[in-house]
Amino acid sequence: MTVIYERVALIGLGLIAGSMALAMRRGGLAGEMGAVTGQIAPHLARGATVTDVGSVKKDVIATVGPLLPDHVAFVPGHPLAGTEHSGPRSGFAELFENRYLILTPPEGTDPEATLKLRALWEAFGALVEEMDADHHDLVLAVTSHAPHLIAYTMVGVADDLRRVTDSEVIRYSAAGFRDFTRIAASDPTMWRDVFLSNKEATLEILGRFTEELFALQRAIRQGDGDHLFDYFTRTRAIRRGIIEAGQDTDAPDFGRGARRKGEAAE
Amino acid sequence: MTVIYERVALIGLGLIAGSMALAMRRGGLAGEMGAVTGQIAPHLARGATVTDVGSVKKDVIATVGPLLPDHVAFVPGHPLAGTEHSGPRSGFAELFENRYLILTPPEGTDPEATLKLRALWEAFGALVEEMDADHHDLVLAVTSHAPHLIAYTMVGVADDLRRVTDSEVIRYSAAGFRDFTRIAASDPTMWRDVFLSNKEATLEILGRFTEELFALQRAIRQGDGDHLFDYFTRTRAIRRGIIEAGQDTDAPDFGRGARRKGEAAE
Repeated sequence: MTVIYERVALIGLGLIAGSMALAMRRGGLAGEMGAVTGQIAPHLARGATVTDVGSVKKDVIATVGPLLPDHVAFVPGHPLAGTEHSGPRSGFAELFENRYLILTPPEGTDPEATLKLRALWEAFGALVEEMDADHHDLVLAVTSHAPHLIAYTMVGVADDLRRVTDSEVIRYSAAGFRDFTRIAASDPTMWRDVFLSNKEATLEILGRFTEELFALQRAIRQGDGDHLFDYFTRTRAIRRGIIEAGQDTDAPDFGRGARRKGEAAE
Repeated sequence: MTVIYERVALIGLGLIAGSMALAMRRGGLAGEMGAVTGQIAPHLARGATVTDVGSVKKDVIATVGPLLPDHVAFVPGHPLAGTEHSGPRSGFAELFENRYLILTPPEGTDPEATLKLRALWEAFGALVEEMDADHHDLVLAVTSHAPHLIAYTMVGVADDLRRVTDSEVIRYSAAGFRDFTRIAASDPTMWRDVFLSNKEATLEILGRFTEELFALQRAIRQGDGDHLFDYFTRTRAIRRGIIEAGQDTDAPDFGRGARRKGEAAE
């Protein structure tokens, strides 16, 4: 393995930075190991590259960019990797392997700095893509931010419903609800910040979502089976695309057997 | 293994009935193997038990119940098991192991018939519960029907959005969207019928869902971070309950690595 950066400072050590630290330690990718906390922006060396791993990019460019000295390069990044756990103790060096990492260098960024950061992420095993920050935020609003808000909402509805107990919701969750809880269990602080900083794109997608949901509710109320059937048929194609692209498997759900009844916690 | 029924007729051979047939064949649980199709209702023997495996129970009791002769018992059932595949070729005998099976015998059903059917499902490895058909339909509207409609909707929105390509949606689906596509890939015919036959409970849950979603959208628009944080914190408890009840694991998402970039189908 080659040393890519002589010194690396990680500010804000959570799951992502924790895993980066472990991946660099394992691979010998950085001259100086471990995490550095605190405010270092005014002390950045000439030629340093500053990056981040947040889920929203337009906002971070607008906020952080102007505060950085001209002699450093700012190359924002977003690794599409995570688990429902947070914090450095949840990190593991393999977190980024075969996962996408999106770089959104603002116009005028030194191309050398972008190439060097790309090399670091590729050494972690990530699949690196570059795009405009605006486009990134819209893509993520569709593939991540809106789905998370919707999942949180559905879980909240289930928890509120007095006529169905939480233990029933939990017991029968494998019928679909479970997949919502998986993505609705992520870190509340992170998600609050995601929605507040990607307000515009998230609200646009949620607006489209409620429009379509109302049309389907109307079809149910009016007994319009053709509308429902056509809609459900169309959405299957996307699922096939995801399996073909290797982003999931179509294996039957073998691995998740519930415990025997006597063992179930309620 | 003991023979529980001498003769078994399976009407409508899909994933569930296909797996039942395989489980019976494997375990020697029925005197006569295989599937029987066609209309047999007028030819039912005295003392026969009729059951079904549909996702909605109030409707099937109202529709099927009155058509059956008095000398047979009708014990509706619903196995909470399935994959995204349908049809008898997708069946496997282990489908029901450690999965819940809900029986909803109408008032006045012969208790012996219910016990006997329970014994069959338990011999498949299922965890058998009994409840009122009305309550079943509400529980399933929360844990399955509403989540499915919401997932279908989100997938439809992604597919409609012209500024984000389908290949981008697919490539970055691991960020949350993928979990929606998994449950939105189920059989369109089955789901059309579920929504039309469980109209009342599904619309009630969807009404509550849109109310709560609007409150969260408003919090995003107004920058009310506390509202978002509190909501997201509350919903985590349900997730923990699901893991503790053995309905899912909290293992990091190791198993689903994307293929290397060059192999990805787009």
